[in-house]
Amino acid sequence: MSVKIGLLGFGTVASGIPFLLKENAEKIQQAAQDTIEIAKVLVRDDAEKERLEAAGHDYYFVTNVDEILADEDIQIVVELMGRIEPAKTFISCALEAGKHVVTANKDLLAVHGSELRILAEKNNVALYYEAAVAGGIPILRTLSNSLVSDKVTRILGVLNGTSNFMMTKMVDEGWTYEEALKTAQELGYAESDPTNDVEGIDAAYKAVILSQFGFGMTIDFDNVEHKGISTISPDDVAVAQELGYVIKLVGDIRETASGLSAEVSPTFLPKQHPLASVNGVMNAVFVESIGIGQSMYYGPGAGQKPTAASVTADIIRIVRRLKDETVGKAFNEFSRPLQIAAPSDVRSEYYFSILAPDKNGTLLQLAEIFNAEEISFKQILQQASDGEQAHLVVVTHSMSKTQLERVTSTLAEAADFMLQNTFKVLGE
Amino acid sequence: MSVKIGLLGFGTVASGIPFLLKENAEKIQQAAQDTIEIAKVLVRDDAEKERLEAAGHDYYFVTNVDEILADEDIQIVVELMGRIEPAKTFISCALEAGKHVVTANKDLLAVHGSELRILAEKNNVALYYEAAVAGGIPILRTLSNSLVSDKVTRILGVLNGTSNFMMTKMVDEGWTYEEALKTAQELGYAESDPTNDVEGIDAAYKAVILSQFGFGMTIDFDNVEHKGISTISPDDVAVAQELGYVIKLVGDIRETASGLSAEVSPTFLPKQHPLASVNGVMNAVFVESIGIGQSMYYGPGAGQKPTAASVTADIIRIVRRLKDETVGKAFNEFSRPLQIAAPSDVRSEYYFSILAPDKNGTLLQLAEIFNAEEISFKQILQQASDGEQAHLVVVTHSMSKTQLERVTSTLAEAADFMLQNTFKVLGE
Repeated sequence: MSVKIGLLGFGTVASGIPFLLKENAEKIQQAAQDTIEIAKVLVRDDAEKERLEAAGHDYYFVTNVDEILADEDIQIVVELMGRIEPAKTFISCALEAGKHVVTANKDLLAVHGSELRILAEKNNVALYYEAAVAGGIPILRTLSNSLVSDKVTRILGVLNGTSNFMMTKMVDEGWTYEEALKTAQELGYAESDPTNDVEGIDAAYKAVILSQFGFGMTIDFDNVEHKGISTISPDDVAVAQELGYVIKLVGDIRETASGLSAEVSPTFLPKQHPLASVNGVMNAVFVESIGIGQSMYYGPGAGQKPTAASVTADIIRIVRRLKDETVGKAFNEFSRPLQIAAPSDVRSEYYFSILAPDKNGTLLQLAEIFNAEEISFKQILQQASDGEQAHLVVVTHSMSKTQLERVTSTLAEAADFMLQNTFKVLGE
Repeated sequence: MSVKIGLLGFGTVASGIPFLLKENAEKIQQAAQDTIEIAKVLVRDDAEKERLEAAGHDYYFVTNVDEILADEDIQIVVELMGRIEPAKTFISCALEAGKHVVTANKDLLAVHGSELRILAEKNNVALYYEAAVAGGIPILRTLSNSLVSDKVTRILGVLNGTSNFMMTKMVDEGWTYEEALKTAQELGYAESDPTNDVEGIDAAYKAVILSQFGFGMTIDFDNVEHKGISTISPDDVAVAQELGYVIKLVGDIRETASGLSAEVSPTFLPKQHPLASVNGVMNAVFVESIGIGQSMYYGPGAGQKPTAASVTADIIRIVRRLKDETVGKAFNEFSRPLQIAAPSDVRSEYYFSILAPDKNGTLLQLAEIFNAEEISFKQILQQASDGEQAHLVVVTHSMSKTQLERVTSTLAEAADFMLQNTFKVLGE
């Protein structure tokens, strides 16, 4: 007797699951100690059902979710519809019906994860979502199983393939943001409204989930400051290269003395940093911890088969736990009270790109502004002036978010200076 | 009531375990659902015991292993002595006494792993060894848990920190092999007899274990062809760079139509390959699979705390399984009959470094030798001659091991050619 699963949605990722179940049948049977059968598949409407049937898919398609929820033979529901609703309602109902749930829905988990996890616990069922962060990279299970002995102090991640593809083109080929976006859209990497990808929202969702697994803290999405790549100019890219850095959109979660800080922002990475060579649509999660030290987990952040591989691994794990009668265990058991870091504890080096009049005393005036906030310079670069305006680039030594806010507002008030961009710089 | 463990050996790694148990007490308690206590520690003799006590270690030191093996309160034995004997005997006795065993002993597992695993299974106890491959990188658990849904087709690994440190210096700084070895020995990375590290033996041990987890096949150590870095000349390094490659000692396990091929050899990696930027003593395992595609796991290959983190994760896993009453489960459940690849199925591009007389027709003659074996050239480089001898470098298109053997012996017989080195080249 096989374990029966119900799929909610049959898009690209979902159709990768039967591929893996078939190709790896023997290995999966050994690991799960049972066979896995796709019993029913929920599709949108009769039109989609007919289209899929015409394409040769011979699943038991249903258009009403109740046919899956009320089916006592189905033990596992796999949600692959995306977005918040109706996914949230369907998952909630499935958990309440005593079914185990696997999903790749990061938006939903980042925003309503606590609620769903409580529901799963109450009903003693599993809620697994390895595919929600960094697609094919098994980072969540690694954090909760293998790094269980270790204390994670910082997680840095290239978590969004679309923006990383764009940044790679902007860095390697000198493309503008607009050129990179256009190509990303043509290749199907970016949606027509690219906001979630390019403004760091998608990466911030993932940072919420990584915070739970890495630090045991459930932060709100609103606690994750996010800044996108749309303001990065070819000038910023060129200066970064000149100074020995590569710019990438990086999620950064770290524990300070006062608590947790999580943010997503364009970041100057030293060229030798392992994250600096993560290119194209690939993702990577770089972990700093007191035991292992530095480790990195690299792979595709999205795509049919990589995501299906993570989803199927979750399904196999549940089937095996059903056999072992240990299925209620939470995906992540690490939990501590949430403490948010004080801005004065969150320290980084920063890059400032500033336009200023090309006259005597400008640099002195700038130095005085930074000095007043006790911020010291690590690198200064003055670019060729057009005769009127000079372009000044400053990389500071480590400074706090509090200092950053103050110096930024002072610069905004100073008549002579026009602050063009400020980005975080990862120290070596 | 806590779970009691006995340590066999109290060297560098062992002393990292209490550090992690203390620093992460709360997290470990959540994951293990119990506390973990180091009940007894086996040391060599009274002199070592006195030395450790004088250094402030207040463990219950014993000098006779029976005090641990006969202690019914000790449920887990952690072996950190290294080498084959007496580790093998002690582990066997522990398994037979119904104790779960954690070890980092790759030599032992590569050579006597099957025997020990059978013993563990017979006694329904766990035998875990995450730290045996790539120290701090949780690659074994990742292969057996997260990649359970996937079919691995190839594993490439930088698996030996010492030789990678040396290769990094030879590539980045232009050091000779001898200079790199001397520094590695001074820094304590290489032993006075460096054979295991530099000749690829240590990496071959790890390839044996990776073959089990990645491909379900238990190959013999003797089935892993290994070739070390001692013959690599500064010339080879320079030519590799000129052609766009980085030379590293790489373990390569892949499944061909006829079976599994596993070998360790100096390999030309394209500069953009993720393994090419794994430098110094760091290790990385690069996995190709039909689902995820390409993924890489990067981290420290050795060292006190990284190794202790892996060992402690194994201990925690066992303690939790004791609670869940699922503790007999094998570390790796993936198992298939062993099939060794036919040499004619094992294909790679190859680099040939050849000395030949600087006269008319030499290149033609060389081309004829390769052509006779149906091997075609991808890149040819003729270096400035000293007037008598020309240095010819050839990178071939993909060819089999059978072809490699044939062409190598033809070249050895040809009076005009002196084959200096042959290395595998990883295609792009």
